[in-house]
Amino acid sequence: MLRVGVMGAAGYAGVELARILMAHPDMDLVAITSDSDEGRMLRDVYPAFAGLTDLAFTSHDSLSGLDLDAVFLALPHTASMARVPAFLDAGVTVFDLSADFRLPSADVYREWYGVEHACPDLLERAVYGLPELFSRDLARARDRVSSGRAALVACPGCYPTATTLAAWPLVHAGLVSGTVVVDAISGVTGAGKRPSARTHFCSADEDVEAYGVGTHRHTPEIERNLSRADGHDHPVVFTPHLAPLSRGLLSTVTMSLASAIAADELAGLYRDAYADSAFVTVVEGQPRTASVVGTNRAQVAAVSVPRTSCVVATCAIDNLGKGAAGQAVQCANAVFGLGERRGLDLAPRAV
Amino acid sequence: MLRVGVMGAAGYAGVELARILMAHPDMDLVAITSDSDEGRMLRDVYPAFAGLTDLAFTSHDSLSGLDLDAVFLALPHTASMARVPAFLDAGVTVFDLSADFRLPSADVYREWYGVEHACPDLLERAVYGLPELFSRDLARARDRVSSGRAALVACPGCYPTATTLAAWPLVHAGLVSGTVVVDAISGVTGAGKRPSARTHFCSADEDVEAYGVGTHRHTPEIERNLSRADGHDHPVVFTPHLAPLSRGLLSTVTMSLASAIAADELAGLYRDAYADSAFVTVVEGQPRTASVVGTNRAQVAAVSVPRTSCVVATCAIDNLGKGAAGQAVQCANAVFGLGERRGLDLAPRAV
Amino acid sequence: MLRVGVMGAAGYAGVELARILMAHPDMDLVAITSDSDEGRMLRDVYPAFAGLTDLAFTSHDSLSGLDLDAVFLALPHTASMARVPAFLDAGVTVFDLSADFRLPSADVYREWYGVEHACPDLLERAVYGLPELFSRDLARARDRVSSGRAALVACPGCYPTATTLAAWPLVHAGLVSGTVVVDAISGVTGAGKRPSARTHFCSADEDVEAYGVGTHRHTPEIERNLSRADGHDHPVVFTPHLAPLSRGLLSTVTMSLASAIAADELAGLYRDAYADSAFVTVVEGQPRTASVVGTNRAQVAAVSVPRTSCVVATCAIDNLGKGAAGQAVQCANAVFGLGERRGLDLAPRAV
Amino acid sequence: MLRVGVMGAAGYAGVELARILMAHPDMDLVAITSDSDEGRMLRDVYPAFAGLTDLAFTSHDSLSGLDLDAVFLALPHTASMARVPAFLDAGVTVFDLSADFRLPSADVYREWYGVEHACPDLLERAVYGLPELFSRDLARARDRVSSGRAALVACPGCYPTATTLAAWPLVHAGLVSGTVVVDAISGVTGAGKRPSARTHFCSADEDVEAYGVGTHRHTPEIERNLSRADGHDHPVVFTPHLAPLSRGLLSTVTMSLASAIAADELAGLYRDAYADSAFVTVVEGQPRTASVVGTNRAQVAAVSVPRTSCVVATCAIDNLGKGAAGQAVQCANAVFGLGERRGLDLAPRAV
Repeated sequence: MLRVGVMGAAGYAGVELARILMAHPDMDLVAITSDSDEGRMLRDVYPAFAGLTDLAFTSHDSLSGLDLDAVFLALPHTASMARVPAFLDAGVTVFDLSADFRLPSADVYREWYGVEHACPDLLERAVYGLPELFSRDLARARDRVSSGRAALVACPGCYPTATTLAAWPLVHAGLVSGTVVVDAISGVTGAGKRPSARTHFCSADEDVEAYGVGTHRHTPEIERNLSRADGHDHPVVFTPHLAPLSRGLLSTVTMSLASAIAADELAGLYRDAYADSAFVTVVEGQPRTASVVGTNRAQVAAVSVPRTSCVVATCAIDNLGKGAAGQAVQCANAVFGLGERRGLDLAPRAV
Repeated sequence: MLRVGVMGAAGYAGVELARILMAHPDMDLVAITSDSDEGRMLRDVYPAFAGLTDLAFTSHDSLSGLDLDAVFLALPHTASMARVPAFLDAGVTVFDLSADFRLPSADVYREWYGVEHACPDLLERAVYGLPELFSRDLARARDRVSSGRAALVACPGCYPTATTLAAWPLVHAGLVSGTVVVDAISGVTGAGKRPSARTHFCSADEDVEAYGVGTHRHTPEIERNLSRADGHDHPVVFTPHLAPLSRGLLSTVTMSLASAIAADELAGLYRDAYADSAFVTVVEGQPRTASVVGTNRAQVAAVSVPRTSCVVATCAIDNLGKGAAGQAVQCANAVFGLGERRGLDLAPRAV
Repeated sequence: MLRVGVMGAAGYAGVELARILMAHPDMDLVAITSDSDEGRMLRDVYPAFAGLTDLAFTSHDSLSGLDLDAVFLALPHTASMARVPAFLDAGVTVFDLSADFRLPSADVYREWYGVEHACPDLLERAVYGLPELFSRDLARARDRVSSGRAALVACPGCYPTATTLAAWPLVHAGLVSGTVVVDAISGVTGAGKRPSARTHFCSADEDVEAYGVGTHRHTPEIERNLSRADGHDHPVVFTPHLAPLSRGLLSTVTMSLASAIAADELAGLYRDAYADSAFVTVVEGQPRTASVVGTNRAQVAAVSVPRTSCVVATCAIDNLGKGAAGQAVQCANAVFGLGERRGLDLAPRAV
Repeated sequence: MLRVGVMGAAGYAGVELARILMAHPDMDLVAITSDSDEGRMLRDVYPAFAGLTDLAFTSHDSLSGLDLDAVFLALPHTASMARVPAFLDAGVTVFDLSADFRLPSADVYREWYGVEHACPDLLERAVYGLPELFSRDLARARDRVSSGRAALVACPGCYPTATTLAAWPLVHAGLVSGTVVVDAISGVTGAGKRPSARTHFCSADEDVEAYGVGTHRHTPEIERNLSRADGHDHPVVFTPHLAPLSRGLLSTVTMSLASAIAADELAGLYRDAYADSAFVTVVEGQPRTASVVGTNRAQVAAVSVPRTSCVVATCAIDNLGKGAAGQAVQCANAVFGLGERRGLDLAPRAV
């Protein structure tokens, strides 16, 4: 059994990590931390755990000295990079769910996050944890761990995960030119657990709204992923929206075709790309967020619109599952050489 | 008082027409019809009207002989055009909420709706009822009515209304080139009142999904409106989405700039375009559907994204208000020379 | 035109008051106050008002010296009673939406609210503003105002309003004995505008929960109303619930019959009680909150369950309408001798 | 591995059974049947199963000859009893989720369901499957199965399950007298999968309503359970309500005390009653439906209201989990001697 901890476990991604790890057959969830809820029982903060666990939140600092194999950081950006070096030095492999190690350079980080990176030297060591597309990155981390050293995995953002899964097969085939338009819709958990005027039920209910237009920080992460697909730059216009659901994220990606592609070729491209994937399914019809909520699964579709020489690709994920906690555990399975689905056979709900 | 009737008043757009017209100070709602609910009281089909009205649904055919000034047709496409000629012949001005008279030619109609148009000769007489942008069309209809003849107004679709209001100022200024990407989100009333597996609460709840990708019939209507803005063709990739709210529609329009525009110029362009509009407000921040639900209002915003030479414009409307019933009444006010806001001072709800 | 102000207009009941009063034909909304949002435009706090008004929040203290005829206090309890005496002294009639003047004695107030009443001498002057049932109380206030003095109206709580309207005809007929069980369900606006863990969308969504079991402060108000109906004490077990809707409140009242009553007698009792009421409708079938939201209306039904010698009466209101702002304006109409429906012909939405 | 089938698996309870049984370590889901969806893939009817299973719906009649150990019947009442005898004759143990075998006599069945019971002789053989309270019943069924004969288990209704769990400890202690008032709130899955005007998203959204007042067929089942608790009759006034959530059920039970009970005694009574229960948790604070949705768990609380000599007990379950499919599998585990939690360690979601 691997000994693991979750830092920031009172937030939505953190508690989803706790939920998954408590049932993981190969991992032992040793500690969950929270600055704001330190000392409280998990079940008192989240009553769904009543009768199921006596886990309590400890302080962030309590993790040192627990002899952990790995830690999952579900902290805000900047808070995360302040913690990473000490864990790595102590030989603890880090799965970081913040944005701190997702971008390739300290310059890009400064440009979008407005702060200096605290440990730019670690950016190169960090691998980007989107297993379906960048398995070689995770293999590098696996090698480190196999040889007794600690690895650092930057877990992708929720929007970049869905968007990249939707766009990849077409971009990878060299068929996309020009600006890529990404409109995505997220449930309210995406806005975090802190109560605010905007996340009040009576504000979010029966409402949809775009936000962060032209400025959302997931943009450079999406652009980098697309450029890794075919070696070219693809400017991305990314507009996220908030909709009245708790969990679930749909990304709709409109791409201009560099050259025509028949509908069956397009279908084949997508089918092949995810044929061996345990968690990504190419669906007939359109992906629905309700179908993947509570799981680590993604549903993808691509539709050709010949009259405009465009393809519209869509991907539905649970922003807290494949978009955060689920994917982090999937990365941990890969890095520690466990079966890909261990702890992640989370049954979706039909209704 | 004008004598008016609503045909198809048991559907969502129809009943919203009834709601507005019952309180309209210059119109007398003489009859509401429904094939499926003929003989039932309005309050028995929609219990919100209990204690407020004794109106009952009569048959569609009951409208003839009522000496109406105008009729609002809230019927499915094809059913609508089967009714229009008789009304016009009888001197009754028609406000048609179906798609039957929105498109410029019988050819385009056949291409997108798959049926032959029943009265192509009337297409030219029909005027397109988006008062903020095509007031001259409505002036033509006003002239007809002033001279004692019946007019025919094709009321715009919900998605074209929001999309055109969002895109118009920029396109009209000649600043848009290339393909226009429209991603829009609608509440479930947009799917109609007929119960189906898809509109079951437990299917629509906590879910978002794209639909009609590349094939939605509002596409040619949007394209035609944009081409009227600057005289050029603008291919549109239109992807509508369904979200878990009852009423409300947000259209997000991503446009490539033909030449750069400063942020304040862009703001000025939009402010000027709707400066005199009673119902369209250019907002700082982003439009929210909850802010316009229950009203005939629209909220619009435009954001420049210089790094991609794009503008993202958004518009929120109530799909049953400015997207259907409200706009039809606004058209009727224009055609009959009534004050623009008559019957349409519907207070939004703050929460 | 009466000059009126709303104190605490940034809260949910307060902004609903503002919404109604802005359109009231006989009242001029001179000022809206807010401590937390002082200096902000109403439309910036509630974007539904964009393009509709330039009203801005001023400080609570700004109301003095405005020569008001009346003020509506939408303040928390205790904050309200601290303001009332000064207004009355200045000749300003007060419609208090807090609980401070609803209870008959300072003792009962202390027992349930845990604080000493600040102006017990005013309790007797206060009249209880439930116009359908206690019109004589409002007539007293009307007399004061007619003779040039300021009146004080305690506007009922949301749960007491719905519960009393549901129970009154049967209790008033002397047919109820024993404990009355009240289970009620409220939308989340009932929990107020302040963001909290409990009112976060992701907490309230897809959840129902009882709260305040046995201790809710509306209990003595309900009991007092029922005792006024027949002169007897009726112990009330009151359990409120929170459900995932923004507005709307349903009270389900189970009463033991002192003697049997036939179904048609029961129906007649209810019909007669509200026959002349502009806002209360006795419905066939069951009241639905969606039918009354956004209005000052109430829907009521009563069903006999002979096998248990009980009657189950239900009442649906909008907790912000008939349960707060609407009713306060209805009281103001009564006290100032205006038509009962002035400013309150708020059309319900069919969907 | 036990060979099991689900009849009526396209409905909400049926598909939840399928979801659970597909992952059950000791059961092999051999067939799922549906009359309306015969021939369709499960994943085409419920897209959450895309990529997860190739199960397809077969006809109801296809189950014979499959050499099943057990069948779960998720059929409407009357349809169920038409199928039961053949299964029992073939040695197939039946878990019936309909109401057909829940009531003690054909007379009571006729009274509430308005039809003659088709196999009254089987009523005595049927055991009532609420394992926490009636384990001896299930032991009887276990004995039958152990000796090679087929058993018949009547799985409780959703409202009776929650209500009985809430009321039992107090009634069992002999502390309840007089009429018991049950007000319960259910999510919309409780109304079934068939699309209707009432279950349309736009009808159920933002609405609460009572239904079946005084006539709901779960009433005699609740009364029978309570009478088994202390040997006395307890007339029940049961009012169910519909609220805008998909899954989840809360029952609020108000009981008059025969004699006083201290708060800590009450707490002890409830704690002891469920101390050994794997699925029922007595919570501090109030149960929330969101905490148990997707699981077989129940949360219970009881609050004394001394001023009225009443206790208000509440219980939250997932109407499709502990209220239907989960409990049926729990019964199957008991009857076949499997571990109580096998296949039922369904992790709740924290959010």
